[in-house]
Amino acid sequence: MPTLPAYDDVRAAAERLQGYAHRTPVLTSRTIDREMGAKLFFKCENLQRMGAFKFRGAFNALSRFDERQRRAGVVTYSSGNHAQAVALSASLLGIPATIIMPNDAPAAKMAATREYGGNVVTYDRYTEDREQIGRALAEERGLTLIPPYDHPDVIAGQGTAARELFEEAGELDALFVPLGGGGLLSGSALSARALSPRCALYGVEPEAGNDGQRSFRSGEIVHIETPKTIADGAQTQHLGVLTFEIIRRDADDILTASDAQLIACMRFFAERMKLVVEPTGCLGIAAARAMKDTLKGKRVGVILSGGNVDIARLGAWLGQ
Amino acid sequence: MPTLPAYDDVRAAAERLQGYAHRTPVLTSRTIDREMGAKLFFKCENLQRMGAFKFRGAFNALSRFDERQRRAGVVTYSSGNHAQAVALSASLLGIPATIIMPNDAPAAKMAATREYGGNVVTYDRYTEDREQIGRALAEERGLTLIPPYDHPDVIAGQGTAARELFEEAGELDALFVPLGGGGLLSGSALSARALSPRCALYGVEPEAGNDGQRSFRSGEIVHIETPKTIADGAQTQHLGVLTFEIIRRDADDILTASDAQLIACMRFFAERMKLVVEPTGCLGIAAARAMKDTLKGKRVGVILSGGNVDIARLGAWLGQ
Repeated sequence: MPTLPAYDDVRAAAERLQGYAHRTPVLTSRTIDREMGAKLFFKCENLQRMGAFKFRGAFNALSRFDERQRRAGVVTYSSGNHAQAVALSASLLGIPATIIMPNDAPAAKMAATREYGGNVVTYDRYTEDREQIGRALAEERGLTLIPPYDHPDVIAGQGTAARELFEEAGELDALFVPLGGGGLLSGSALSARALSPRCALYGVEPEAGNDGQRSFRSGEIVHIETPKTIADGAQTQHLGVLTFEIIRRDADDILTASDAQLIACMRFFAERMKLVVEPTGCLGIAAARAMKDTLKGKRVGVILSGGNVDIARLGAWLGQ
Repeated sequence: MPTLPAYDDVRAAAERLQGYAHRTPVLTSRTIDREMGAKLFFKCENLQRMGAFKFRGAFNALSRFDERQRRAGVVTYSSGNHAQAVALSASLLGIPATIIMPNDAPAAKMAATREYGGNVVTYDRYTEDREQIGRALAEERGLTLIPPYDHPDVIAGQGTAARELFEEAGELDALFVPLGGGGLLSGSALSARALSPRCALYGVEPEAGNDGQRSFRSGEIVHIETPKTIADGAQTQHLGVLTFEIIRRDADDILTASDAQLIACMRFFAERMKLVVEPTGCLGIAAARAMKDTLKGKRVGVILSGGNVDIARLGAWLGQ
């Protein structure tokens, strides 16, 4: 196992990201404060470049490449935000990027990845293993593989969002973070433990796929089938080796939220805060709302991880 | 005619609003900058309290009430954002508020106005005159009438949005502002002339109701029938006496945008910037996009006036 990243790595990542990543706003809402009887701070990573926090980790990892790595290029596998994050970061840094995507990925996502200059390689997700294809390409062509979450530089990069939140809002009593593979949660843990040591840290995953919760409580990484949920950014089958180590050391608990809760929160963000937040981005606030009673009078941080959702679909959900 | 407000009044309004209005973020987008070949700064008043800049003007006007006025209360007429702005401001300041709304106003808007503590009085918009009802109520009960735009304190309050934009972005080459009755545009003019004197200032109204453009070009206030447009915040029939004086003195031109252009811009904001912007709020960027060639290499400000749009309707527009 590589060494676990630490808060110093988050600080170094923040320097690398300066001038490349947006310093996203921290927004507040008196409506939700009144509802909760608490003071909430929303870190708006839906307003990050390419619409999600993923840019932070990808850019940090790629900007650490040496000359040989830069020339040869990067390879990754992802059907979602990480693909675009790597493609965009690579194009900004002048590094060739190969992105392995399932051949049934939405055309819009493939197009967006290509638009950022990524070379898309497709595979059949029912018969082929994307990790194997990635490793094979990496070996054959000397590419550097940057996985979506289980990598020290990716984790450190993701931690810069929570770092900015604490810088702006000060110490907090609790922080709620969406949980898929654990990159954002473990990075947030590094910042929380350094900048707000008494802050309770909660990861939140879809009810349909609570592998993180089961892993956290059993002490062993649990693998599951791809869960059926609208939170497509958190349809991961298991935590990473590194992310799990940090999460089990630093998180206070792993909570879950149902699709119905996520839709109610998307409605709140769109109607009251005028923000487009994707289902995965609503995991944190959904769990916070459900534990309203224990949060009374507290200062609560919530990371909105992304906003990449089809607007017609959002309209359909909210029109119900 | 009352004395026209000046930039000093905007500065005083900004002090009154401190701690009550949000200092809304100024957001940027590399996607639109690339499209336009310019640097754009979006002042996000859709993220203002109650979802629109209107809170600024209403709160400024009400906070200048003397003891007698506060006790007697405020009255206004509006079917839109100004109604909620007055109701919310009045409740914050402990002033009774009477809001005159058409009896066919959307139930949600009436409910929101009542939620803020407003006493709603309805009228028949086909047979009754809301301004007359307002003046009658003001006289009978000693209420102070705060109209939606043609009032020095309202204009000065609206000017604080552009003031914050210039403070954050510095001087600009051009500023695009949605135009209905002219409160936001004339307030913006006061800030622009003081803080960025060489900035070209454009008001933008719906193509279906270009009374402002015709007034600006003819030198006389033109009255029209209520125009048919999705930009419900700019369905005004004429400019105000005060707003027109400032606009004809300080604006460089009045432009128009079609509903189809507004829908394309709502799509851009929702899909690329993750922001819910109402049709009226898109007027500025729609006109800027149409004059792309003359804006090359410039620093351009755009005020997003509000975000109060039904999400199911937004989804339907964007699903087309």
